[in-house]
Amino acid sequence: MDGVLADVYSRFFELQEQQSGIRLTVMDVAGKLEAEAFPNEVKWITTHGFFRTVPVIKGSIEGLRKLNENFEVIVVSLATEFPQSLTDKQLWVYDHFPFIRWQQMVFCGNKNLLQADIMIDDHLKNLDNFKGETIMYSQPHNLNINHARHKRVHSWAEIEKLLLPKYRPGQVRRS
Amino acid sequence: MDGVLADVYSRFFELQEQQSGIRLTVMDVAGKLEAEAFPNEVKWITTHGFFRTVPVIKGSIEGLRKLNENFEVIVVSLATEFPQSLTDKQLWVYDHFPFIRWQQMVFCGNKNLLQADIMIDDHLKNLDNFKGETIMYSQPHNLNINHARHKRVHSWAEIEKLLLPKYRPGQVRRS
Repeated sequence: MDGVLADVYSRFFELQEQQSGIRLTVMDVAGKLEAEAFPNEVKWITTHGFFRTVPVIKGSIEGLRKLNENFEVIVVSLATEFPQSLTDKQLWVYDHFPFIRWQQMVFCGNKNLLQADIMIDDHLKNLDNFKGETIMYSQPHNLNINHARHKRVHSWAEIEKLLLPKYRPGQVRRS
Repeated sequence: MDGVLADVYSRFFELQEQQSGIRLTVMDVAGKLEAEAFPNEVKWITTHGFFRTVPVIKGSIEGLRKLNENFEVIVVSLATEFPQSLTDKQLWVYDHFPFIRWQQMVFCGNKNLLQADIMIDDHLKNLDNFKGETIMYSQPHNLNINHARHKRVHSWAEIEKLLLPKYRPGQVRRS
């Protein structure tokens, strides 16, 4: 969810600027984990209602809609570290991706418990232990990582180009 | 969670009595789904704070503590049908089972997405499609079901007796 559907960085840049007067750029935070780049991150994300204010990543609504028509899509969020975020996070998915049903959502503390064929994620901690095909969505914190196995994409247009041709009628795959 | 750790029926009996003046018994609701047995069930469970008021199933705290010392335990709740319940449900787990860490929790819309070796559950819809060992925890709604594959247990003492001898040092199993 965060870093693939939810554009948390846009929101973090806004909040950082509001609080410090300084607008950071992607290059300022490249290669740093969110909490390192934004010292107030945990305070922000644990504020009631925070996740409802996060914008969507460009192209993700149309892209996920297309994937959802051709694959068995599950939206997964590593979310239980912050219990107060759970309801907000699910309502955010409903806000922007109303075609994703409640049966397709998972809020958990470990993504490696899930079985699936394809994972799109921005964090190595999730991708590295996944047994299927892995796609790394570019986000500032992972820009310095070069990983042979995880195919890097920079946009939802790239995801569409990569995955939609794989679909053949009658072969529904779980992603 | 519900029907294995959370004693939702005790709470439903209480609320039903408060609202109708009639105290139902297990036999009155045996074999009926919760929503059929308690017409106000959805109204109750979608009330903010409901899940924090549910008592624990007898023996579950001590039983889960023992399993947690010997197995890789994951607490899973089919919860996304009711987004407002998610935060309450996780806080409830912390209230009663503080030894379960956030990394061990899953709130989802389909338990069949998870990979594990053993499932303890009260619902056939979860047990039937699970590939590992299945244990059916007796609850009023499932009392009429006789299923050759799912081992029925009536108490946490039975779960302990069934599972703890399976543990041999060095063999951590996920349940």
